Amino acid sequence: MDMSTGMDHQRIALALEFDGRPFHGWQQQENATSVQACLQDALQAVEGEPLTVVAAGRTDAGVHAEALLVHADVSAARWQRSPRAYLHGCNSHLPDEIRVVGVRAVAADFHARFACRGRSYRYQIWNRNTASALQRWRHWWMPRSLNIEAMQGAAVHCLGRHDFSALRAAGCQAAHAEKHIRSLEIVQHGHCIHIHVSADAFLYHMVRNLVGNLVEVGAGKRSPDDFAALLASRDRQLGAATAPAHGLYFTDAWYDDFYSRDLIGTC
Amino acid sequence: MDMSTGMDHQRIALALEFDGRPFHGWQQQENATSVQACLQDALQAVEGEPLTVVAAGRTDAGVHAEALLVHADVSAARWQRSPRAYLHGCNSHLPDEIRVVGVRAVAADFHARFACRGRSYRYQIWNRNTASALQRWRHWWMPRSLNIEAMQGAAVHCLGRHDFSALRAAGCQAAHAEKHIRSLEIVQHGHCIHIHVSADAFLYHMVRNLVGNLVEVGAGKRSPDDFAALLASRDRQLGAATAPAHGLYFTDAWYDDFYSRDLIGTC
Repeated sequence: MDMSTGMDHQRIALALEFDGRPFHGWQQQENATSVQACLQDALQAVEGEPLTVVAAGRTDAGVHAEALLVHADVSAARWQRSPRAYLHGCNSHLPDEIRVVGVRAVAADFHARFACRGRSYRYQIWNRNTASALQRWRHWWMPRSLNIEAMQGAAVHCLGRHDFSALRAAGCQAAHAEKHIRSLEIVQHGHCIHIHVSADAFLYHMVRNLVGNLVEVGAGKRSPDDFAALLASRDRQLGAATAPAHGLYFTDAWYDDFYSRDLIGTC
Repeated sequence: MDMSTGMDHQRIALALEFDGRPFHGWQQQENATSVQACLQDALQAVEGEPLTVVAAGRTDAGVHAEALLVHADVSAARWQRSPRAYLHGCNSHLPDEIRVVGVRAVAADFHARFACRGRSYRYQIWNRNTASALQRWRHWWMPRSLNIEAMQGAAVHCLGRHDFSALRAAGCQAAHAEKHIRSLEIVQHGHCIHIHVSADAFLYHMVRNLVGNLVEVGAGKRSPDDFAALLASRDRQLGAATAPAHGLYFTDAWYDDFYSRDLIGTC
């Protein structure tokens, strides 16, 4: 049966929030708990048959999400009876660390990954001499005071379309290293520093490598000009260490007619 | 030896942040892990001898703190060598769920509890149709949409000095039920509702009972006038259920010459 066009199935988009800590990333794999496997198990419990879900992007082990977009083909009859009941049904079969936070019907040819026009992430740094007991799994702790203006001065060099090989991890499977960063903002909230970045797509570990290098600028180990030279070098070997996964949040995915974040609280 | 006045001891004030989830509250007790026992163990590891700490207030099991103030009498020589090293020494012996976030010298007759002029708490509600995967141990989840204006209309009846018997739990050991609420603010941040309350002191479960009743107003089960009548009744039996502990944060304690919150990041 053609799942994507069968009259008895409906393609739906789900926005997912999850705490990355207990998971070995998004992607299903042998002998490790993944977000994908948990979601597929929950949908199978609702649907009564196995199905496969596709996400806008694959998050690494430990990375969090506020609105990762996923699509799946579900029973049209069950869905149409009540989208709201469908959402609560999924959540009743998910662990507390994963919630479906919004859901909507999409066209049969919609694709969470290939139709995605851009993704947004936020990276959270806890910039205080002492670590935080309450935020310890939510931020990267950086005891040395960071110079936000210097970080902002470096960040402007990332804007626009560039070859980001200098921020690309070994093992990256992208066809090319040219990506378009549409916005990159660094904002301080008390002891927290939030780095917001949006691009058409990201290379493997690109955000975490970006943050690792921006933090070296903030700590005075590199100047904004050094950062620009690093980008131009296209050489990952010259860069700083990758920032840890637990400070990173997938925050939004955008499509022709909606943002994943806008699904939150609907339905 | 008189610990409080001995020349070889220095009284210090410590500001504590902790995640209340793994603890059976502040107070030391048999067969249960308390914040007090963990802090005393850490100080003993630094000092080489047992000592007792006194807090501005006793938090219940599951309640969090951002800046609970505590005093202790420590070795004057060790303290004076480096307050900063002293702070990091304590933290190296504490579990990750507790951090000393600031510390200062105080007079030998300073008392964290009896010299405290007032305390502040924040209560966090997650007001969205779906629970939050990331905030699940940090907020009380309330799926029904709450009317903030109605809650604010009820809250004004609490301001000033009143008999708060209607919000007092059984087992409260306070000599009388008259307390002075200096401020009570209800603020919405996206899906979160924060309730900030400051008073000279609080009765047992007073903030959680206050929140339980304000939420009934927000949900339309009581009017602001009903809430005022409840307070005037002085009868706890007429009130709503106690709000859960995991939404509550001890945020500040104030003294003649400093606030516990101001100690954060100093030293």
